[in-house]
Amino acid sequence: MSRIRPTPDLSITSLGACRITSPMAPLLDARQTTEHYVDEQDRVLLDDTLAGISSRGVPAGELPGMEPCGPRRKIFFDPSKTRAAIVTCGGLCPGLNDVIAGLVRTLTYHYRVRRVVGIRNGYQGFVADYGHDVVELTPETVRDIATDGGTVLGTSRGPQDPEEIVDCLERLHINVLFVVGGDGSMRGAMEIARTVAERGLMIAVVGIPKTIDNDIPYIDQSFGFQTAFSLASDAIRAAQVEAKSTANGIGLVKLMGRHSGFIACYAALARSGADAVLIPEVPFALDGDEGLLAHLRRRVAERGHAVVVVAEGAGQELLPDSGVGSDASGNARLQDIGPYLRRRIGDHFAGAGVETSIRYIDPSYAIRSVPANPYDSVYCVRLSQAAVHAAMSGRTAMVVGRYRRRFVHIPMRVAVSRRNQVDPHGDLWMAVLESTGQPVRFG
Amino acid sequence: MSRIRPTPDLSITSLGACRITSPMAPLLDARQTTEHYVDEQDRVLLDDTLAGISSRGVPAGELPGMEPCGPRRKIFFDPSKTRAAIVTCGGLCPGLNDVIAGLVRTLTYHYRVRRVVGIRNGYQGFVADYGHDVVELTPETVRDIATDGGTVLGTSRGPQDPEEIVDCLERLHINVLFVVGGDGSMRGAMEIARTVAERGLMIAVVGIPKTIDNDIPYIDQSFGFQTAFSLASDAIRAAQVEAKSTANGIGLVKLMGRHSGFIACYAALARSGADAVLIPEVPFALDGDEGLLAHLRRRVAERGHAVVVVAEGAGQELLPDSGVGSDASGNARLQDIGPYLRRRIGDHFAGAGVETSIRYIDPSYAIRSVPANPYDSVYCVRLSQAAVHAAMSGRTAMVVGRYRRRFVHIPMRVAVSRRNQVDPHGDLWMAVLESTGQPVRFG
Amino acid sequence: MSRIRPTPDLSITSLGACRITSPMAPLLDARQTTEHYVDEQDRVLLDDTLAGISSRGVPAGELPGMEPCGPRRKIFFDPSKTRAAIVTCGGLCPGLNDVIAGLVRTLTYHYRVRRVVGIRNGYQGFVADYGHDVVELTPETVRDIATDGGTVLGTSRGPQDPEEIVDCLERLHINVLFVVGGDGSMRGAMEIARTVAERGLMIAVVGIPKTIDNDIPYIDQSFGFQTAFSLASDAIRAAQVEAKSTANGIGLVKLMGRHSGFIACYAALARSGADAVLIPEVPFALDGDEGLLAHLRRRVAERGHAVVVVAEGAGQELLPDSGVGSDASGNARLQDIGPYLRRRIGDHFAGAGVETSIRYIDPSYAIRSVPANPYDSVYCVRLSQAAVHAAMSGRTAMVVGRYRRRFVHIPMRVAVSRRNQVDPHGDLWMAVLESTGQPVRFG
Amino acid sequence: MSRIRPTPDLSITSLGACRITSPMAPLLDARQTTEHYVDEQDRVLLDDTLAGISSRGVPAGELPGMEPCGPRRKIFFDPSKTRAAIVTCGGLCPGLNDVIAGLVRTLTYHYRVRRVVGIRNGYQGFVADYGHDVVELTPETVRDIATDGGTVLGTSRGPQDPEEIVDCLERLHINVLFVVGGDGSMRGAMEIARTVAERGLMIAVVGIPKTIDNDIPYIDQSFGFQTAFSLASDAIRAAQVEAKSTANGIGLVKLMGRHSGFIACYAALARSGADAVLIPEVPFALDGDEGLLAHLRRRVAERGHAVVVVAEGAGQELLPDSGVGSDASGNARLQDIGPYLRRRIGDHFAGAGVETSIRYIDPSYAIRSVPANPYDSVYCVRLSQAAVHAAMSGRTAMVVGRYRRRFVHIPMRVAVSRRNQVDPHGDLWMAVLESTGQPVRFG
Repeated sequence: MSRIRPTPDLSITSLGACRITSPMAPLLDARQTTEHYVDEQDRVLLDDTLAGISSRGVPAGELPGMEPCGPRRKIFFDPSKTRAAIVTCGGLCPGLNDVIAGLVRTLTYHYRVRRVVGIRNGYQGFVADYGHDVVELTPETVRDIATDGGTVLGTSRGPQDPEEIVDCLERLHINVLFVVGGDGSMRGAMEIARTVAERGLMIAVVGIPKTIDNDIPYIDQSFGFQTAFSLASDAIRAAQVEAKSTANGIGLVKLMGRHSGFIACYAALARSGADAVLIPEVPFALDGDEGLLAHLRRRVAERGHAVVVVAEGAGQELLPDSGVGSDASGNARLQDIGPYLRRRIGDHFAGAGVETSIRYIDPSYAIRSVPANPYDSVYCVRLSQAAVHAAMSGRTAMVVGRYRRRFVHIPMRVAVSRRNQVDPHGDLWMAVLESTGQPVRFG
Repeated sequence: MSRIRPTPDLSITSLGACRITSPMAPLLDARQTTEHYVDEQDRVLLDDTLAGISSRGVPAGELPGMEPCGPRRKIFFDPSKTRAAIVTCGGLCPGLNDVIAGLVRTLTYHYRVRRVVGIRNGYQGFVADYGHDVVELTPETVRDIATDGGTVLGTSRGPQDPEEIVDCLERLHINVLFVVGGDGSMRGAMEIARTVAERGLMIAVVGIPKTIDNDIPYIDQSFGFQTAFSLASDAIRAAQVEAKSTANGIGLVKLMGRHSGFIACYAALARSGADAVLIPEVPFALDGDEGLLAHLRRRVAERGHAVVVVAEGAGQELLPDSGVGSDASGNARLQDIGPYLRRRIGDHFAGAGVETSIRYIDPSYAIRSVPANPYDSVYCVRLSQAAVHAAMSGRTAMVVGRYRRRFVHIPMRVAVSRRNQVDPHGDLWMAVLESTGQPVRFG
Repeated sequence: MSRIRPTPDLSITSLGACRITSPMAPLLDARQTTEHYVDEQDRVLLDDTLAGISSRGVPAGELPGMEPCGPRRKIFFDPSKTRAAIVTCGGLCPGLNDVIAGLVRTLTYHYRVRRVVGIRNGYQGFVADYGHDVVELTPETVRDIATDGGTVLGTSRGPQDPEEIVDCLERLHINVLFVVGGDGSMRGAMEIARTVAERGLMIAVVGIPKTIDNDIPYIDQSFGFQTAFSLASDAIRAAQVEAKSTANGIGLVKLMGRHSGFIACYAALARSGADAVLIPEVPFALDGDEGLLAHLRRRVAERGHAVVVVAEGAGQELLPDSGVGSDASGNARLQDIGPYLRRRIGDHFAGAGVETSIRYIDPSYAIRSVPANPYDSVYCVRLSQAAVHAAMSGRTAMVVGRYRRRFVHIPMRVAVSRRNQVDPHGDLWMAVLESTGQPVRFG
Repeated sequence: MSRIRPTPDLSITSLGACRITSPMAPLLDARQTTEHYVDEQDRVLLDDTLAGISSRGVPAGELPGMEPCGPRRKIFFDPSKTRAAIVTCGGLCPGLNDVIAGLVRTLTYHYRVRRVVGIRNGYQGFVADYGHDVVELTPETVRDIATDGGTVLGTSRGPQDPEEIVDCLERLHINVLFVVGGDGSMRGAMEIARTVAERGLMIAVVGIPKTIDNDIPYIDQSFGFQTAFSLASDAIRAAQVEAKSTANGIGLVKLMGRHSGFIACYAALARSGADAVLIPEVPFALDGDEGLLAHLRRRVAERGHAVVVVAEGAGQELLPDSGVGSDASGNARLQDIGPYLRRRIGDHFAGAGVETSIRYIDPSYAIRSVPANPYDSVYCVRLSQAAVHAAMSGRTAMVVGRYRRRFVHIPMRVAVSRRNQVDPHGDLWMAVLESTGQPVRFG
């Protein structure tokens, strides 16, 4: 009998974000107009279940928790002398332009920072050899950018030399750097923060974590995720329509999700009608009476058609290892499960003498490149406000995120410490199982 | 210096939901297939901030908390003998059909309940005089209903005699009643549960709270809210386009929100560009140098146009009391702030000799009647699964909801105890102020 | 037995557009690269039915026809010395920004015209007193404008003094003026062309007719019309959902259409389910057994709900003349049929003792301000290309349009000579009658 | 100097549709209520240009023309005894369900035909071996089908034995058969009509031509085409966003269009920004200074990115003939130009030492399976009304379509006589060239 799954213990009392401190640079009084300041001592508890808290056996004051986001009464950087930079890294994700616009607006309107520059094409933009100029960013230049997808700053994959990056930050007199990127980019940002510290510089490096797969630990949902799964559910709808329109039709949809099946789960829940959802967290077998193929045979016999949703990272163990290595971002290249499944399903039905018709849909790029939906727009605005407050108060080597509906500071090392995954015993996966009627495990 | 605002103390140790108990009816073993059961002793803590918990000064085991939702190992009703009924009450809200479909599917597929009936047109459907027949609901009849807005069961406002309702439940041999409705409907449901108890019947009454205004306490977001504010942001966009297209153009958008400004806040954040957001929680003055009208004059002078977003419940104190009474649902009738503001703005600019053009947009019905967006669809499915598990385990006089991302049971009396409102000192309102650049308070 | 209704005879052999001619200014060879030039002698016949053509009894060469649009081998203006101006007038309509962008691109890329200016806020922008600056327009500045609705140039209603306008054109050294606007604006443009001619100037005045009501004669569909009726059909859907959701629910939707019911007809056809469509072209009675009210009573009795779609110009004869005069554009102010119908329907059902619930939806501004849909975007691009070709070849006092799928030149005087209306004996209205099942005439 | 391209001469005076005639079966008076009957002698002229008509040198009465659609005063089938069948064949296309619903409604409401059946899964449904039952179709069963894409009747590719089909029609006592399908399906329908005639049966076979590629001659636009190119323009948008977001990014979009580039042209016009559009009608070279690859190199150098739109049937001459044969519908299998172009572009840039990133998008299935947009919904309703009127009046072996905005009857043999293609000298292609700035011909 399982309890609410507690978030894994971090074995630390407080996930306080790193701060820049300097004897020569005392904190300043914030001068912006607000009635709302966050108490520097407050924390959001990591665990909010009775079972979780009781099991720790420590006084309340020592329970692990995270700093809440928000404006501080005392700030570290003098806005009138602050120069900020923004860089976007890695693959596209809905909301990048909202984050850029939100950062620029909050820096300009709330703190009256006078200069914000955009770095072009990810970390490449810091490296002279690539020849990318920086872009001046003002509320005027970012006014309408959120109506389009992608990132106006451009992006690139892969790391660059942190020394060269910090040289560039020094050359541009940057005090505050915002990095919008994924796992690999945050590791890069940690390197930048380390190099900054080694040189004794006072530059805050603050991350806004980006992952369309929603796999960042301690973050409720990553920005762009809702937009992404909404579009992904359209692909499922298309597959259903195709499958239903022919005798024994089968629709096969491959969705994003290298390590985590969140998009597949949410998209399938948003459209009732999928017959199987396959995610990286739950291995599955194709063959045998309890395998996927037999399940599909039964469904086609009962309903006249079937629809399968597969996350790109699912079923890797079924595929021959081709030793394809890793991509520029350092991610292991995945075998392509989509065409493999398509072939195996086709062979299986052909072998059983059932004439079928398989429609394979892979909507990947069409999903990454759309503008954020209104929910994600709001979320991006609030994340970027939180990031600016964090940076101005002197936080560094940390990211902002929303944890159990509270905006919080999370140290970068914690944010990259593991991946958030669908809990095979949790209620999301149970909801999927109830919706598809598939067995707890295939095979 | 404020701390994270704790949720108001309920002065109770545990928000355990009510249960039906009967010496003659021992709990049964659940026979559905799942690896996931919720521990009956577990709780989700009401407060998850250090400041909040410390201030209580009680041992962890005594901290106030709520029951988590989910399937129980022991259930109260024998599925093979259970008859369930569903009723939808009050105004339309995106997602009603998703909830109906989700309830029917979970009852049928998960528990194998054989008969589910829909009550037509809200509580009226229980009353013989209205002559509405009940509707048989099966997975087949609800298969495609979620592609359309509204409710296939119909709805009505206002209460009906609880004795007559329970007569009808007895006549139909209903064991489990699901009520989807707002504040008033939940009060009605409490009356039904009370009458059931007085008669010594064993009928579970479980609510799925509905409010497009997002004003239910202890619930992160009510279903349909995201769909609603997304559409509301389209109305703001339309007002902006109109305002920008004429010299000194002014766009005025009235949005839903009788007591709470959530839709206005989120919709405005989703579209940067509003110059003022007015909500019931924050009184405002029109006149004076710090009033709304002067603010709009300045914005029109600076930007050539201005956009105002007003929640329907805002500024009621400015309107002459016309003694209009209350509607069929028992809600006090509001004065109409929209036309009032329109006139006052028009008069003000005319008085100042500035030729202007005011576009007034009130999209209310167009927002209530759309189908749920994919996020709300998922949310409705999960809520309905939670409601079925709660009912089958014998919970009654309670509602399901999501609190800090956990699905929980909330006693009905708690859910109707107060309204959730935008915290004028919280980060949502601060985000709005930063986005619009309006003063902390007009006047 | 009616034949295909011929377009009314214009009693002229050829609808040749006006041209600027000048003994001092011989035509130039077009230097743009194209394999496609339009023959100056070709014509698109006004009538394409056997019945129509036969009845004229003239040789084929004398049949009335219009000049086809397109690039000419000989052009009038030397592109290197041409200055063009664009002005947008009257109410908003989807596609205005597409037209502006299309004009700028074709002038710049195709003809290599070096200077294009935008006039701000309609004809007001020509008048010094209003103090509106002109805007430089380049392919770069118009690149993304079509993603938003409205017009980046702003607009205003009503005429301005043509002498003052032509003064301004002279001051700015404009050779080619594009006027995007409605009926009234085209009359204004004729005045400008007349004044230009009187002064012996060589300025081409070319119109792109705009009317969301689709009421321009000899034009298949006006730009923005498809976008508009698509959105209007959403309003009908909302009304249906509301009406179905309550016992005896009635949805009432008021759509645009001062003199022509095209939007009402198309929107109703796009959503089957309306019970009555009311348009200006077909008078109707409310009372009596054959009247609208009795029809609605029967429908509510049969179906449980009813939906009425009314064009704003319908049923004016039923309303008391309040002598409200005309608006700034010179259009007679209409009485508001919407609230009148709402009241009459309410009274009728109340009088019959039937409890009902009426939802009234008036989506006007929300429809005018959206961006063009892809079809209208394509249409706007092609119209603007046609307009540029016409202007460069020296046409003036004419508009471009699409007549029976051919892009053609139409003299302004013809384009404002009457309004296009729904033919009460034509197949569009018949299709509506079949769709709604309403009688040929109410009353 | 080219004239308006006349539609190719059919060398016939009148495109009268075929009719069923029978000495034993005199025409009946139509009893439906309408004020609108079409004159049996009227014709819509094939050519509506002066150049075209003059060149024929025949009296007006002998000009080639088509029968207008619409209700006739005299009908052939007695509605009370008529049984109708509907079959949908070939690939999916937006609007199929609208056509089905429209046919059922017009047969039932307008003519009061009592029995309409749907044939399952295309022509397969007529063949006993496949075991597909027929479906009863009523206004009630088709009420909401148009909200979903695909076809509720299912579909299949390829012909079936006409003798077996007519056996089935006889067995079901069908008098009127509606075939919704493409080129191959219309050839099949002609075989059915021939077999019907040989057996001396009186069964009307009326087609509603379906082709997402818009390649039916004499038809302005095929149903579903606007919906399709609207979605296709989203794919171009996605490719642009991806291309812009990386240094030297290239977006490559493959769209539908086996023989005709209409979707590619319209989709590209709807989104300014494509750098090249490649269609089957215009051959192109990859290599050489005037080839596509050099053009892309120049665009990437100038703009930092490039976008190519290619119709699936374009550039077949560049691909090695793999002798892949034809599909079940009898269409020659095309080589896949998409991956070929992707490789060639990649090799070219790599060879030139330019690091690039190519995003390849092929949205095919996602486009075919969506519901019709409001325009296509209206068009489908009107087409289906026209088809029913044609059938009831005894027309057979013909299709309905819209020619220069008139709904007309077209003999099947004419409708399959050739394919409609983009005219490389016409204004659509010129508009594309102006929009992309690509040369008149690559290479």
